[in-house]
Amino acid sequence: MHHTMVPSDRVEHVAVHSWDGAKLGIIERLMLDKVSGTVAYAVIKTGGLLGSHHHYPILWSALKYDAKRQVFETELTMRELRAGPSEFDDETFDWGDRTRSYPHPHYWTV
Amino acid sequence: MHHTMVPSDRVEHVAVHSWDGAKLGIIERLMLDKVSGTVAYAVIKTGGLLGSHHHYPILWSALKYDAKRQVFETELTMRELRAGPSEFDDETFDWGDRTRSYPHPHYWTV
Repeated sequence: MHHTMVPSDRVEHVAVHSWDGAKLGIIERLMLDKVSGTVAYAVIKTGGLLGSHHHYPILWSALKYDAKRQVFETELTMRELRAGPSEFDDETFDWGDRTRSYPHPHYWTV
Repeated sequence: MHHTMVPSDRVEHVAVHSWDGAKLGIIERLMLDKVSGTVAYAVIKTGGLLGSHHHYPILWSALKYDAKRQVFETELTMRELRAGPSEFDDETFDWGDRTRSYPHPHYWTV
């Protein structure tokens, strides 16, 4: 049966690759806009030195599922991801804060 | 900081109560419409006899978060939920199948 629904728990923990083939990380969680009922963005958890992790927001619309490889693809590169906002493990980054402005055009344009 | 974002993993496994106070179950997962990027509905897992479970779809817009009690509330009662479509544990119910018609007005009206 062909349809366009996907369960949230089959999106979480799926790998995200850059268009250049590099693995950026995995989808840690989705951020939902309660009022509009939309998926605003995904939080990507990247691997790091000594088991530490960075957490980056990527717009949901910037992620494309590749069914063959079973990964999400994005046009962002790791370099671009690193240039944007992020959280480092237990920091209390406010993901929903829209009063901040972020440099990358893929963010916050929902 | 006040905003309208909620992480998917803070929605999953949260209890859902009926307006009449009855606990209906917990949110097992969210079903996302890949094309529109919206949360179409939540799948509610209810407790059952001998450890078996039913799984019911409830429209996202029919769920309201009660921050004080930390549960979702809905106008649906257990009786109404049971009258709608459901899956019983390992059945291969096609949650995304929009060619089916369902009796309850809270479903599939997105």
